[in-house]
Amino acid sequence: MMKFVNQLNNNQQMELQTQFEVLSYGVERIVPKEELKEKIAKSIVKKQPLKVKLGLDPTAPDVHLGHTVVLNKLKQFQQFGHRIQLIIGDFTGRIGDPTGKDTARKALTDEEVQHNANTYYEQFGKVINMEKVELHYNSKWLSTFDFSKVLELASTVTVARMLERNDFHNRYKSHKPIYLHEFFYPVMQGYDSYALQSDIELGGTDQEFNVLFGRQIQEHYEQEKQVVLLLPLIEGLDGVEKMSKSKGNYIGVDESPNDIFGKTMSIPDGLIVKYFELTSNLSIEEVSTIKSMLENGTLHPKDAKVRLAHSLVELFYSKEEADQSQGNFANVFGKNKMPENMPEVIWELETSISIIDLVKGLNLLPSKSEARKMVQNGGVRINQEKVMDPSQMIEVVDGIVVQVGKRKFVRLKVNP
Amino acid sequence: MMKFVNQLNNNQQMELQTQFEVLSYGVERIVPKEELKEKIAKSIVKKQPLKVKLGLDPTAPDVHLGHTVVLNKLKQFQQFGHRIQLIIGDFTGRIGDPTGKDTARKALTDEEVQHNANTYYEQFGKVINMEKVELHYNSKWLSTFDFSKVLELASTVTVARMLERNDFHNRYKSHKPIYLHEFFYPVMQGYDSYALQSDIELGGTDQEFNVLFGRQIQEHYEQEKQVVLLLPLIEGLDGVEKMSKSKGNYIGVDESPNDIFGKTMSIPDGLIVKYFELTSNLSIEEVSTIKSMLENGTLHPKDAKVRLAHSLVELFYSKEEADQSQGNFANVFGKNKMPENMPEVIWELETSISIIDLVKGLNLLPSKSEARKMVQNGGVRINQEKVMDPSQMIEVVDGIVVQVGKRKFVRLKVNP
Repeated sequence: MMKFVNQLNNNQQMELQTQFEVLSYGVERIVPKEELKEKIAKSIVKKQPLKVKLGLDPTAPDVHLGHTVVLNKLKQFQQFGHRIQLIIGDFTGRIGDPTGKDTARKALTDEEVQHNANTYYEQFGKVINMEKVELHYNSKWLSTFDFSKVLELASTVTVARMLERNDFHNRYKSHKPIYLHEFFYPVMQGYDSYALQSDIELGGTDQEFNVLFGRQIQEHYEQEKQVVLLLPLIEGLDGVEKMSKSKGNYIGVDESPNDIFGKTMSIPDGLIVKYFELTSNLSIEEVSTIKSMLENGTLHPKDAKVRLAHSLVELFYSKEEADQSQGNFANVFGKNKMPENMPEVIWELETSISIIDLVKGLNLLPSKSEARKMVQNGGVRINQEKVMDPSQMIEVVDGIVVQVGKRKFVRLKVNP
Repeated sequence: MMKFVNQLNNNQQMELQTQFEVLSYGVERIVPKEELKEKIAKSIVKKQPLKVKLGLDPTAPDVHLGHTVVLNKLKQFQQFGHRIQLIIGDFTGRIGDPTGKDTARKALTDEEVQHNANTYYEQFGKVINMEKVELHYNSKWLSTFDFSKVLELASTVTVARMLERNDFHNRYKSHKPIYLHEFFYPVMQGYDSYALQSDIELGGTDQEFNVLFGRQIQEHYEQEKQVVLLLPLIEGLDGVEKMSKSKGNYIGVDESPNDIFGKTMSIPDGLIVKYFELTSNLSIEEVSTIKSMLENGTLHPKDAKVRLAHSLVELFYSKEEADQSQGNFANVFGKNKMPENMPEVIWELETSISIIDLVKGLNLLPSKSEARKMVQNGGVRINQEKVMDPSQMIEVVDGIVVQVGKRKFVRLKVNP
């Protein structure tokens, strides 16, 4: 079993130790741990990179800080010279959801798939080196299957095993329908690992069932089984729910530097270390130091968050932009001043307008009723002065600054 | 709903009545009954024959009296001018059982499928007119499916519905594996009905789940749904278990006239009427008369069985052979004499041989131990004389008659 681990010389053993320590850092579960060591050892002995797979849903390219957890892990693999296999699951995306009952889920066109793949490509490029990444579309092999090949694949799986998956289990127990084709999504994903001879597959802990499937399919086809690295899901800005776009508690990787900085400053103190470990690009040692300093009180949580926010903006943009958004943040929140840089909008509507219509007209809030609430709560300022009366009329003049909440500022230009 | 039934004239209504009465006679369940009437009415109005489907397992062409139940029903459909669709399920037969765990079930070769289809053809030909039958192989359409077509088909089915099928349900509850591909057998069979636009499907009551599936698939593809006729299973010679080759309680349609006659005479009296109804070619009225006569004691069960046995030999062979085997039976069992006709075997082994080796040498019993038992029980005779001592030596001379049990006779020829 430990065939390659046992033939390493001293230098190679140190190399194995280093890689194993870094690659398993922050990982929730490795299945199985010993096989990860053996995979690394084999790669060292044979001087061959490991093939590290990440599967992507072609329908939802909204990349946020939650994805950074897995991207940072991929980056570490890259730094050791391993090869990343990104797989766009376009096969199911192209055929759509065939129940025909959920018309909301239509088949994607080739252009949509391509567009979504490009979005991943750009946004992932902020963290990993996309030039060294293999990009695959699983329609390449899945679309060639005939019925007998599908049946062969299906014969590797038991119904009981499928019904162990949490969501299937719950739906079955509560008499909600599971359509037979749904059982094929994990199977197809597992086949992808076989098709690409993956050594490692990464996934969030919520993907455990699916990513483990690859091992089963590879075993059926007598291929060396992949090792699965399950990465923790990070809580969102609320500190409670898993970060997700639909919950609105997320930091998008393509948000502006000021937004990323400000949102990071808003996380609960309890999440600071976890965010450092999983989303920043600080080394293990640096994170460890920050952790001790927070524990013994030599580092204030607010300062730790500044450091975290800076590192995230640097990761997604550059050191310069990180410095600048740190400066802006200090100006606004430290000294209660306006930021130096803010968006300018050319105002072309009436110059005498109610505060509600002004806020809504600038799209600073989605509806008039929300604008009214915000005004009544004292969250709206004109040139730093609170406006509390929703019926107050504002004379819009050139250079006037409208502020909503803590972080939204707009300067109006009025053409003479 | 009753669109066609409601537009029949008087003559047509009588025709509908006649067809409906004959076609539903002896059927355990019609799903749904009203639709059968409508199908017949439509066929009468449009002067189009109904398409009547029967699916056949390509691996097991052992046709016995149990199949006659469905063959007789097909024959009635033929007599009303409807069209029979026999489907050889060669697709699954050709790909074999893909679990790879049951090596006993290998994929059939094209030749084997063809051979088995021919066997059906010959043996069914004893009951129905094979020249007017459509013979289909389901590989024709199923082998053209790609993965997305399979998924579409799968999306018409829920997992819960599948697990309602008795054997799946029991296996799931008792933690025995069900492999995912097994769910496809009923689905594929259902698709066959769609592919052939079947109006009617016949099946034994044990096939209820599978044959009902056709309705579901046709509905998904917006085709008029077939009506299902579930035919009762007949008990075998033991009067208890379902007739089947594996249980040894069957009458094979290619057995000799004497064997068919003799075996029929051995059924329990309680089955006489059921066998008449389901397996003989007697008319409804004739069966009804026999039933009353048995009930009021004017017909002795033994005489009823002679009539039944005669009708079955006539069905599978001819009136002449039926008469002859009735004569043989009367000779042997009525007057305890030897039959006039019996097989002759040219004896080429030792002419001085133990009774055990003689019986085994003639293949009258499968093993020496069974031969020994039969001798000890007084079931073996040489020239009508019982031989009870298993070690007794027999001098084989020309014309000697060996009898095993009640019905097996062989006359030996010894070349001088």
